Amino acid sequence: MEKAIHEVNLANKLDLIQEHWSPKIVGELNDTYVKLAKLKGEFIWHHHESEDELFLVIKGVLVIKLRDRDLVIGEGEFAIIPKGVEDCPFAEDEVHVMLLEPKSTVNTGEVQNERTVAGQWI
Amino acid sequence: MEKAIHEVNLANKLDLIQEHWSPKIVGELNDTYVKLAKLKGEFIWHHHESEDELFLVIKGVLVIKLRDRDLVIGEGEFAIIPKGVEDCPFAEDEVHVMLLEPKSTVNTGEVQNERTVAGQWI
Repeated sequence: MEKAIHEVNLANKLDLIQEHWSPKIVGELNDTYVKLAKLKGEFIWHHHESEDELFLVIKGVLVIKLRDRDLVIGEGEFAIIPKGVEDCPFAEDEVHVMLLEPKSTVNTGEVQNERTVAGQWI
Repeated sequence: MEKAIHEVNLANKLDLIQEHWSPKIVGELNDTYVKLAKLKGEFIWHHHESEDELFLVIKGVLVIKLRDRDLVIGEGEFAIIPKGVEDCPFAEDEVHVMLLEPKSTVNTGEVQNERTVAGQWI
């Protein structure tokens, strides 16, 4: 069956998101989900055993703490965190991001805890 | 070996691109390449047998002609063309796009011709 083909407006979809640290699915291609999220404050240290993850900053400034340094990603910039790398995202002020992740990705990486959320379409 | 982790500025990378219809690779995650391209004029009708493709418009307006209608994608919008769907991208004025494609994707789909270009990192 052919999937519906349509344009997706990032700002309109972001308007539907209230909660921080709860990525929503807005597209799928091949084995990858396109997600949008609003982030504020500090997440948790985690890693993904077998999945690389891309963060594209739509609005604001995202800091991704690595074990040896901080990565600062501004508007119109992206970074890819390779599998196995421990990171901890941090946003002093609210940040809007587009994420690319394999469909198998769990947001908290190799652990499941109160910050774990299931992917949901918006 | 760990890949270098760094932020990529879309505007700075786009400044390096002169030619139209010649996507350049700016990132890789899992089996996917992140590419940037400047488009102007009409491409060719093509399809990808087994790969979905995402177009995110960074600047300008991209029209993707489908066999039954035109898809109009503005700044801050994306669309995913599923595998097997015939399409013909068209840009009246220059458009800047981010593309997501499996590493196996050939830009002209199932045919190779003078519009076929090999992926190159910038």
